[in-house]
Amino acid sequence: MHLKYGPAVIEGVTKDSALIVRVKKMLITEATKYQEVQIVETYDFGRALVLDGYIQSTEDDEFMYHETLVHPAMVAHPNPRKVLIVGGGEGATLREVLKHRTVEKAVMVDIDGELIELAKKHLDFMHQGAFSDPRARVVIGDGYEFVMNSEPGQFDVVILDLTDPYGPEISKKLYSKEFYAGVKKLLREGGIMVTQAGNSYFYPNTYDYVLQNIQANFSVVREYWYWIPSFSYACNFITGSDSVDPASLSEGEVDRIINERGLKNKLYSGAHHVSLFKSKVLRSRFASA
Amino acid sequence: MHLKYGPAVIEGVTKDSALIVRVKKMLITEATKYQEVQIVETYDFGRALVLDGYIQSTEDDEFMYHETLVHPAMVAHPNPRKVLIVGGGEGATLREVLKHRTVEKAVMVDIDGELIELAKKHLDFMHQGAFSDPRARVVIGDGYEFVMNSEPGQFDVVILDLTDPYGPEISKKLYSKEFYAGVKKLLREGGIMVTQAGNSYFYPNTYDYVLQNIQANFSVVREYWYWIPSFSYACNFITGSDSVDPASLSEGEVDRIINERGLKNKLYSGAHHVSLFKSKVLRSRFASA
Amino acid sequence: MHLKYGPAVIEGVTKDSALIVRVKKMLITEATKYQEVQIVETYDFGRALVLDGYIQSTEDDEFMYHETLVHPAMVAHPNPRKVLIVGGGEGATLREVLKHRTVEKAVMVDIDGELIELAKKHLDFMHQGAFSDPRARVVIGDGYEFVMNSEPGQFDVVILDLTDPYGPEISKKLYSKEFYAGVKKLLREGGIMVTQAGNSYFYPNTYDYVLQNIQANFSVVREYWYWIPSFSYACNFITGSDSVDPASLSEGEVDRIINERGLKNKLYSGAHHVSLFKSKVLRSRFASA
Amino acid sequence: MHLKYGPAVIEGVTKDSALIVRVKKMLITEATKYQEVQIVETYDFGRALVLDGYIQSTEDDEFMYHETLVHPAMVAHPNPRKVLIVGGGEGATLREVLKHRTVEKAVMVDIDGELIELAKKHLDFMHQGAFSDPRARVVIGDGYEFVMNSEPGQFDVVILDLTDPYGPEISKKLYSKEFYAGVKKLLREGGIMVTQAGNSYFYPNTYDYVLQNIQANFSVVREYWYWIPSFSYACNFITGSDSVDPASLSEGEVDRIINERGLKNKLYSGAHHVSLFKSKVLRSRFASA
Repeated sequence: MHLKYGPAVIEGVTKDSALIVRVKKMLITEATKYQEVQIVETYDFGRALVLDGYIQSTEDDEFMYHETLVHPAMVAHPNPRKVLIVGGGEGATLREVLKHRTVEKAVMVDIDGELIELAKKHLDFMHQGAFSDPRARVVIGDGYEFVMNSEPGQFDVVILDLTDPYGPEISKKLYSKEFYAGVKKLLREGGIMVTQAGNSYFYPNTYDYVLQNIQANFSVVREYWYWIPSFSYACNFITGSDSVDPASLSEGEVDRIINERGLKNKLYSGAHHVSLFKSKVLRSRFASA
Repeated sequence: MHLKYGPAVIEGVTKDSALIVRVKKMLITEATKYQEVQIVETYDFGRALVLDGYIQSTEDDEFMYHETLVHPAMVAHPNPRKVLIVGGGEGATLREVLKHRTVEKAVMVDIDGELIELAKKHLDFMHQGAFSDPRARVVIGDGYEFVMNSEPGQFDVVILDLTDPYGPEISKKLYSKEFYAGVKKLLREGGIMVTQAGNSYFYPNTYDYVLQNIQANFSVVREYWYWIPSFSYACNFITGSDSVDPASLSEGEVDRIINERGLKNKLYSGAHHVSLFKSKVLRSRFASA
Repeated sequence: MHLKYGPAVIEGVTKDSALIVRVKKMLITEATKYQEVQIVETYDFGRALVLDGYIQSTEDDEFMYHETLVHPAMVAHPNPRKVLIVGGGEGATLREVLKHRTVEKAVMVDIDGELIELAKKHLDFMHQGAFSDPRARVVIGDGYEFVMNSEPGQFDVVILDLTDPYGPEISKKLYSKEFYAGVKKLLREGGIMVTQAGNSYFYPNTYDYVLQNIQANFSVVREYWYWIPSFSYACNFITGSDSVDPASLSEGEVDRIINERGLKNKLYSGAHHVSLFKSKVLRSRFASA
Repeated sequence: MHLKYGPAVIEGVTKDSALIVRVKKMLITEATKYQEVQIVETYDFGRALVLDGYIQSTEDDEFMYHETLVHPAMVAHPNPRKVLIVGGGEGATLREVLKHRTVEKAVMVDIDGELIELAKKHLDFMHQGAFSDPRARVVIGDGYEFVMNSEPGQFDVVILDLTDPYGPEISKKLYSKEFYAGVKKLLREGGIMVTQAGNSYFYPNTYDYVLQNIQANFSVVREYWYWIPSFSYACNFITGSDSVDPASLSEGEVDRIINERGLKNKLYSGAHHVSLFKSKVLRSRFASA
């Protein structure tokens, strides 16, 4: 076996391992005000969004990440009408949220307006028209400020779709204890939040920092993870609530809610939901970060 | 983020992507009669066995692979007394099999005697003394010949722990329809086999070839997979039987059997078992192999 | 020391070594009828042209290659009036040829018209207007056919600026004995040809094949080489003639001719010329190709 | 073209480019008190010594580096009897120095005694018995201290064979103005020093720092460089003296001295000497370091 020569993305896994992903075509290589953006056609994953040297999502496997991020919390909430998304500039998280018939309003706050414009133009398989749904409202602004300064008790579900906690500076404060306190205030009674949490295996310390910050604010905290091929590793997720417990749902209950809300998914199902919450969260003994 | 310079293993994922894993120390770099063997100390995974450029197992995550390969089939069989392992030179599969109190005899057939000697010497965290268990019998020989020429109806469980079906030549015939027919003959009534099956996501065609070859011989075929960090991707597994169905076991039943047989595991539990069989097997649309 | 993550070109050196060159921006990633073309902004070398995974020339060091290819043969010829270039689609070889006041006509034959258009648009530091010089004539066509079928005795100097002899298929026949016989016929009396010849160190067999094919046709054959940073290795060159001997020129003679012909160079001088022809051509004992 | 998978050394060129060199066998991977040492068998270059992630010398091309470092200064000195080498733990610089019949005593000072022992054992093609020559004296100690505290006026030639000035911390002070003043004091009248100086192309600022520090101490300073294949780039060298000028020697004079002193070289000759001093020293416009 061998690697063909040519253009590629060298993607960080840790400081001691990296993934080389060969690239067929580079569509966009720009620095926005906030981050370096590449949109590339890869051989193995189709079109991909790369931020600051990390693959964020690809044509081939974005559904694994976005369905797994959005639906467990959304399905666990009995009637999610108003949803806040922080980050998620590609529009795919918004797309998944809007699948739920119960949703009346979905607010997406992303700091990087240039990135959203690039996504609209070059990543239509991501948003699939979500940006023009009348229930969607896009705010270009700082998610931290938005959360800390908005009127309390507005949202049923808050979804944090950010770059990794050990990644670019831009996202760091959006994993802090104060921020989660802010998120909690924004939730209506019976509300739930979910965040992607990087990778617990290679970055146990950062993961535990995020987990503890959520536990400091919420009494029902649940963890799950799923392998994302184009990341070369698994992505972890954490939910926080004072009443809603996604892990308590049975396969049948999830399938019934999927049916009621009219969700058409590629991956997420009752079986997937149950599988996620039964899978142990692991941390490497060798991790240095 | 950045990659430090120095020694590394360039590991194939596909012909269009590769993982660079930095290495602290190279202990063994030898060619046996059958394959290139490296035993290295990596930064991210501890000690690792590399065959023909593919990481086979590492100190850090070998339990994920070996527990997930061995226990679903073993636990699903009501009384596994005689077990055959083909491949598995490091001795870790043997170690997991011997954990089951029901086992009276475990035969391990590996073609590469030199590899077994290297493993005994440098990978004791793999075998952990399994080679000297009185119930173990190690045969240095061709697994294909052994299976095709042994007396029928001998084994309760057959475990195929081979290099990938799209990997080195050495293992190819051990994924063929004829070979699985041979395995079937070797099984006692009520027996079950399991094989690792490479990765269905990047190699859907090879995976489907293996799956169909098993389906051509067995009426109850079950698929599952698990992410192995040091592979950078998930490993798939397939069971074949005419009566035993691992997917039908409940979490409680598995936990009860684990308890009865005295299994002390790092990962495998009733929850893990259920999680595995509820997780969808995926194939990339972009895969070229 | 470490490597930053992000987009890159993985460039082949041999089948056992490769250069990773980080890329700031990908401008062009297209397949023409004949080859894969990338035009990229690298961090270390500025803008670069990549053909079939090999860096051909970069903003930073193209003068090293083009001045060293063109001037030794041109200066050694007492009065080069008509010059043929085969290959050289970027226009930089044409630019160097046209610097010589003696030149009345320079014909450049390149098979890849699309590449020439891309170079005109994105690589103006290469051609620097050479394409619109009234003495230049660009022929889009097969260099082999052009050489074999043109009227004999037309050119004073023939410059072969092709992809490597061990590189893409497209150039292979342009290093054959028959082709050099064709080149010889095209030369006027007292004419000289020069070719780039890949790298003698890593590819001694291919290099010797090219050398012998030239020696089979010409009585005065001279070899020289120069390190090209963006190749990560040295590029070899071979001249062939029946009378003109570049190695016989003294530093002072070369400087006088440079002066007479009005050459303004970044690198090529009498000292550079003498240095080139005094440097030993080396072949690795370990080279497998 | 493609890269085979397997063990490799990822070698730094700059922070934006790296060379991947495939490795057949890793013989030594140890940290001495001062540096990380690897001794590996590569496919392209044979056995190689790697210090802190940089290839220092290989079986295949070490003669290029060592002959080019040692002989220009040694040959330019009319009668080198006592020679000091700082660094050069592999013993190959010592080997080249001892080739000169005029040499009565060669003192080699290297801080890393463990490295010398490893070289003696595993790199005999380097020293070739030089360590047991009765004229050789090896001092395990700090080269800086040795130079600053030794009795003045002892040596005809001082050769500085150190890791790169932009490389490991260990060598930094051995490129300082104060150190070169110390070297000057150690020289007898008519003496000359030479140092390897890293690479001027990718590291012009560091190179110029070294150059200026030498010019601050010596009135006759000469620069030269040579491509070292296993470095993937050229190595620069600088001589300093108040009277000896290697650039003034003719090809014939060098060949006469080579003959008188009985030097048997693979590369170094009168032609090589002249070629070196006629080659322009280049600095990249894009270099960031």
